[in-house]
Amino acid sequence: MSGSIYGKHFQISTWGESHGKALGVVVDGCPAGISLCEEDIQKSLNRRKPGQNRYSTPRSEDDAVEILSGVFEGKTTGTPISLIVFNKQQRSADYSEIASYYRPGHADYTFDEKYGFRDYRGGGRSSGRETIGRVAAGAIATKILDQLGIQITAYSKSIGPVVISPERFDLSQRDSNPLAMPDAVAAEEAAAYLDSCRKNGDSSGGMVECRVTGMIPGLGDPVFEKLSANLAKAMFSIGAVKSFELGDGIAASQAKGSTNNDAFSLDNSGNIVKSTNHSGGTLGGISDGNDLLFRVGFKPTPSISASQQTVNKDRKEISVSIKGRHDPIIVPRAVVVVESMAALTLTDALFSNMYTRMDHILDFYRR
Amino acid sequence: MSGSIYGKHFQISTWGESHGKALGVVVDGCPAGISLCEEDIQKSLNRRKPGQNRYSTPRSEDDAVEILSGVFEGKTTGTPISLIVFNKQQRSADYSEIASYYRPGHADYTFDEKYGFRDYRGGGRSSGRETIGRVAAGAIATKILDQLGIQITAYSKSIGPVVISPERFDLSQRDSNPLAMPDAVAAEEAAAYLDSCRKNGDSSGGMVECRVTGMIPGLGDPVFEKLSANLAKAMFSIGAVKSFELGDGIAASQAKGSTNNDAFSLDNSGNIVKSTNHSGGTLGGISDGNDLLFRVGFKPTPSISASQQTVNKDRKEISVSIKGRHDPIIVPRAVVVVESMAALTLTDALFSNMYTRMDHILDFYRR
Amino acid sequence: MSGSIYGKHFQISTWGESHGKALGVVVDGCPAGISLCEEDIQKSLNRRKPGQNRYSTPRSEDDAVEILSGVFEGKTTGTPISLIVFNKQQRSADYSEIASYYRPGHADYTFDEKYGFRDYRGGGRSSGRETIGRVAAGAIATKILDQLGIQITAYSKSIGPVVISPERFDLSQRDSNPLAMPDAVAAEEAAAYLDSCRKNGDSSGGMVECRVTGMIPGLGDPVFEKLSANLAKAMFSIGAVKSFELGDGIAASQAKGSTNNDAFSLDNSGNIVKSTNHSGGTLGGISDGNDLLFRVGFKPTPSISASQQTVNKDRKEISVSIKGRHDPIIVPRAVVVVESMAALTLTDALFSNMYTRMDHILDFYRR
Amino acid sequence: MSGSIYGKHFQISTWGESHGKALGVVVDGCPAGISLCEEDIQKSLNRRKPGQNRYSTPRSEDDAVEILSGVFEGKTTGTPISLIVFNKQQRSADYSEIASYYRPGHADYTFDEKYGFRDYRGGGRSSGRETIGRVAAGAIATKILDQLGIQITAYSKSIGPVVISPERFDLSQRDSNPLAMPDAVAAEEAAAYLDSCRKNGDSSGGMVECRVTGMIPGLGDPVFEKLSANLAKAMFSIGAVKSFELGDGIAASQAKGSTNNDAFSLDNSGNIVKSTNHSGGTLGGISDGNDLLFRVGFKPTPSISASQQTVNKDRKEISVSIKGRHDPIIVPRAVVVVESMAALTLTDALFSNMYTRMDHILDFYRR
Repeated sequence: MSGSIYGKHFQISTWGESHGKALGVVVDGCPAGISLCEEDIQKSLNRRKPGQNRYSTPRSEDDAVEILSGVFEGKTTGTPISLIVFNKQQRSADYSEIASYYRPGHADYTFDEKYGFRDYRGGGRSSGRETIGRVAAGAIATKILDQLGIQITAYSKSIGPVVISPERFDLSQRDSNPLAMPDAVAAEEAAAYLDSCRKNGDSSGGMVECRVTGMIPGLGDPVFEKLSANLAKAMFSIGAVKSFELGDGIAASQAKGSTNNDAFSLDNSGNIVKSTNHSGGTLGGISDGNDLLFRVGFKPTPSISASQQTVNKDRKEISVSIKGRHDPIIVPRAVVVVESMAALTLTDALFSNMYTRMDHILDFYRR
Repeated sequence: MSGSIYGKHFQISTWGESHGKALGVVVDGCPAGISLCEEDIQKSLNRRKPGQNRYSTPRSEDDAVEILSGVFEGKTTGTPISLIVFNKQQRSADYSEIASYYRPGHADYTFDEKYGFRDYRGGGRSSGRETIGRVAAGAIATKILDQLGIQITAYSKSIGPVVISPERFDLSQRDSNPLAMPDAVAAEEAAAYLDSCRKNGDSSGGMVECRVTGMIPGLGDPVFEKLSANLAKAMFSIGAVKSFELGDGIAASQAKGSTNNDAFSLDNSGNIVKSTNHSGGTLGGISDGNDLLFRVGFKPTPSISASQQTVNKDRKEISVSIKGRHDPIIVPRAVVVVESMAALTLTDALFSNMYTRMDHILDFYRR
Repeated sequence: MSGSIYGKHFQISTWGESHGKALGVVVDGCPAGISLCEEDIQKSLNRRKPGQNRYSTPRSEDDAVEILSGVFEGKTTGTPISLIVFNKQQRSADYSEIASYYRPGHADYTFDEKYGFRDYRGGGRSSGRETIGRVAAGAIATKILDQLGIQITAYSKSIGPVVISPERFDLSQRDSNPLAMPDAVAAEEAAAYLDSCRKNGDSSGGMVECRVTGMIPGLGDPVFEKLSANLAKAMFSIGAVKSFELGDGIAASQAKGSTNNDAFSLDNSGNIVKSTNHSGGTLGGISDGNDLLFRVGFKPTPSISASQQTVNKDRKEISVSIKGRHDPIIVPRAVVVVESMAALTLTDALFSNMYTRMDHILDFYRR
Repeated sequence: MSGSIYGKHFQISTWGESHGKALGVVVDGCPAGISLCEEDIQKSLNRRKPGQNRYSTPRSEDDAVEILSGVFEGKTTGTPISLIVFNKQQRSADYSEIASYYRPGHADYTFDEKYGFRDYRGGGRSSGRETIGRVAAGAIATKILDQLGIQITAYSKSIGPVVISPERFDLSQRDSNPLAMPDAVAAEEAAAYLDSCRKNGDSSGGMVECRVTGMIPGLGDPVFEKLSANLAKAMFSIGAVKSFELGDGIAASQAKGSTNNDAFSLDNSGNIVKSTNHSGGTLGGISDGNDLLFRVGFKPTPSISASQQTVNKDRKEISVSIKGRHDPIIVPRAVVVVESMAALTLTDALFSNMYTRMDHILDFYRR
């Protein structure tokens, strides 16, 4: 259990390092009979690919995915789906320098403490490239949810001090600017802010917001396997995440019950609905049919060229400046990772929910 | 998998409803040879017991725990430890009214959607009494951590708009006021705020902060089983939690790398330490030896006597006012639950970490 | 993970020792809406109760079960079901002697090696009483299978050298003799054999056979989670089991393909069936719709009054004779344990199978 | 959970089909710091490679393994190890005929029942080639056990009616004959038997025996996670297995306690030992320090050229004869698979055992 397996029903096992031969994932528990081709997965991978604009590392990678198993005549067979992405730039850099000290804000020190040594090439397993397996597997989960009408949409909500405006919110803008902001004005302000950060050899944090529509009520279990708890874990498993909020989030802790409770009412068709959604789509940790709405806060990219203090292998205090061009912000490329982890988590909850009622089980087997 | 089992190495299985005969927990995977008696567990249970002050439900329960198995001649045997707490007030109330409608902010609606019906007596399994099993098991985990010098301390950081002051911070105050605030002045302000809430039939949210000292570096795994991710899940598995922050939390998403990164330096003994702890004690999801520091935001108690809109069994919109005296704030009693879930999560990570290095495995078996 | 949790979907957590206060089980993942009362469970427990005839230990226990949670108004709620059986004779015996040496064939030595000490009262956790939790939980699983038409029937196939005869096979006899043999003649022969064993202070091994009718094809997964593999584990988890055979079992290893293969044919309704069932009801580890048929071999009860050599606490070789009246054969009381473990294993496979096909998942959620 | 993940601590995730692009495995939970190169793994894979003699399918495959991740500068890093073997002959055959009917004794029918269709090329995921991932991962587990002095040795014990003789037992013979029999005379008799089987278009079953020396006492847990139970599952997860016996196995069910119990005594150094090993190396499911000894029975290869009855896609009864040259016996090539599954199971138990005693945990963390 080194921690690279996720899910209890729809299980994924990711592998690979920043500068190894390849990265990939094995998906165990994907239902049979889903149409699946490489293009389905490539679309998602392309959204996290590096080098697409000036706010992303210039590393050149196609990140072309290959399906190695589990698909026959265009359909999933129900057996493990193995996906692989070969690294192109695995030998390009000289890592002797970063091998010699601990980069502040990175996992260099903790890997050494835990394992006794580390693969120092580009962060090894703690690199952002590790998310390739998550996004590839998430693309399959997304196909499953799609067929049930469940849609997951994430975007950059804030970058440094720049927050999108509810008035200007326009989802169609998200894919039109390099910062994945659904607000063209905020995107320009954020770009200016990032340019100034980079000029100073600095980086910025930011926040991703995610909305899930078409939710089915009843997903998630009481107590430890709450849908909300599993989403919290899913999001905090992404590198650099420091906060997770569901619905009103932190504001709920400052609120009163009379304003925070969501009243129930009837819609025009006589269905029970909530008049508001402060809770963010769950009650008691179980989905209530409303949109899921949550926010994930990311710390600034730790690789900065500004001078920092640290300690080297010889246990001497030194000043360092991380070389190379790094992402000044992780948030825009993390948007698809947030969506992928949400898709994996929801798919797992969807399957788990199928055996919770005896009448449903009887219907299933007597059909 | 109805979600009442927690942990992968130190596994607990909780059970029981608010108004059933009893509640309890089975602990599977507790090491042999730990001194354990009922008083060890009772101390923790007493901290979450109802009816101790005017900010807590007046339900009268001793919450006296009994050890049914797994302990022989005062020591744990390595086999399952079964703990039980009998309910005293299981038949006291008339629940026919709340059986007839969905209480806003409660899990009534989602339980009905998921299971087809619900145990409506006092919230059934989604009651706060469900945490008895967590706290009882957490007391055992705490004994394990104690022996390794790991100490977990939580307290109320804010109640409604009242936040403790860093200048007045005094941990010894925590157990001297009914609101578990380590700041006597803030505790008085919060009490006044709660009194006004209650006068208006309202309730308040709040925030718990938790610090873990004596941390061992290297706990947690990269990728999905990050210590931070498991803490996030643990905290979000507690009812009413809407936010989780590690270290600087949300502030990190507004920060720059140059200020957010924690520089490494050497302490007087020549050990590698961090000069600051913005990260909250993990790097790459693995403990870095610094204190863990995290905050958990709770929504206001949903049971309020002020009038609310909802829908009843006959699918009619109605106005309701929840009767009885309920906790106007969940936070002070949740403090020990936060500590317990942290203890369970850390113990699990502690065991998992033992088989990560071949040299350590050889040392272990060749000793 | 001390190993007292079984199942991945329908999960049970058993606890309790031979001479502790009580034994029990928590069932997590039982579907909502199943009628359940104590009598449903008591029926199964009564079949394993001691002291019912002269081939069973005379320990006097009612083994009366109590439901502590998870049932409301006569139906399962979908939340954990806690079942408890109090021990009556927990303090009756003097165990100072067996505390002082290692009983041959028992787990005394291995418990000491593993845990550093042991609960020596009546075998502690390795006692046959540990199966109370399995049988209680198995009774619930059996109710689920019943509703789908799946019936599990086990019986004693052989006791020492006495084997039931296919010609005389009469299932109605099973519950008419104390040895659970579906053959009245063999039962008498076996009784005589056991009487002679006991006269010599000796004990006997035997074999249980189990048949499952009404099977649904498609249960079990390829590779590691084969239905056959999980049955093998389930049976070998019962104390004293030394062999497991599916279908022709050992005979298959001496056979030829031409005689061992089961031909496919069509029945009168045009359904595909197998003409024979050498395989015992699985192909590739997945149920094929035929009866499951397997055999479980038990070693002789290790507690015998005949003199044996062993080593005591002072590391001296000694001769011992186990005092008290013990079961001279474990097999008749193990019949219901075999059925229970089969029921638990099948229920788990039944739930797992529900999310293997996308068309079925869509049907389920769009109903 | 499609069942291709094995282990709880040392976890492997296998993937790939007989005629897909490749097969492989991801090992999650391998400790850091183990020297590992492709040759270490290739040695084991070569033992199961097809086409090496006339008792094996003539399919030509190099089965050359490549390490894609988890190893840095010749040592395991503690992160997932991805291993891949490309198929060479993936497009060689015409499978249209076997696509049209259900082969007796194969998983064709059950895959169709479970998944709605199947990858019919060479058996797809239920092919013997699926074991490549197991053997590759098993080679790593074997390296771990080696360092602790634990050695696993399996061999063919019987082929059809031909059984090795205890008097002629000579392990050095095992690798000198194509049937992996540690008895040169039996190997010749078995070869003659197989030649006659094949002449008649038939196949044979057989049995593998496995011995583990250098065992550490205390491995395995009481109740469900007995070492014996996990070995039973491991072995029954191998295709074509129909029986599993530990120690005296089936003979124990016919024995008396006085002869079946293993007496304890002291060896020359004063250590507690067992005078006999009828139990096969466990007591109460926990290793007792003696050799593990178990036997695994395999049914005859179901692919035979002799005529068989079956049903085709159009639901017509037909006679078929499986074309091509198939293994007339699966046993010799299964020997390394049995060893691999034993190695994986033991490694898992080894890690699980590390956190069972508080004094050992304290020693570990205070070292």
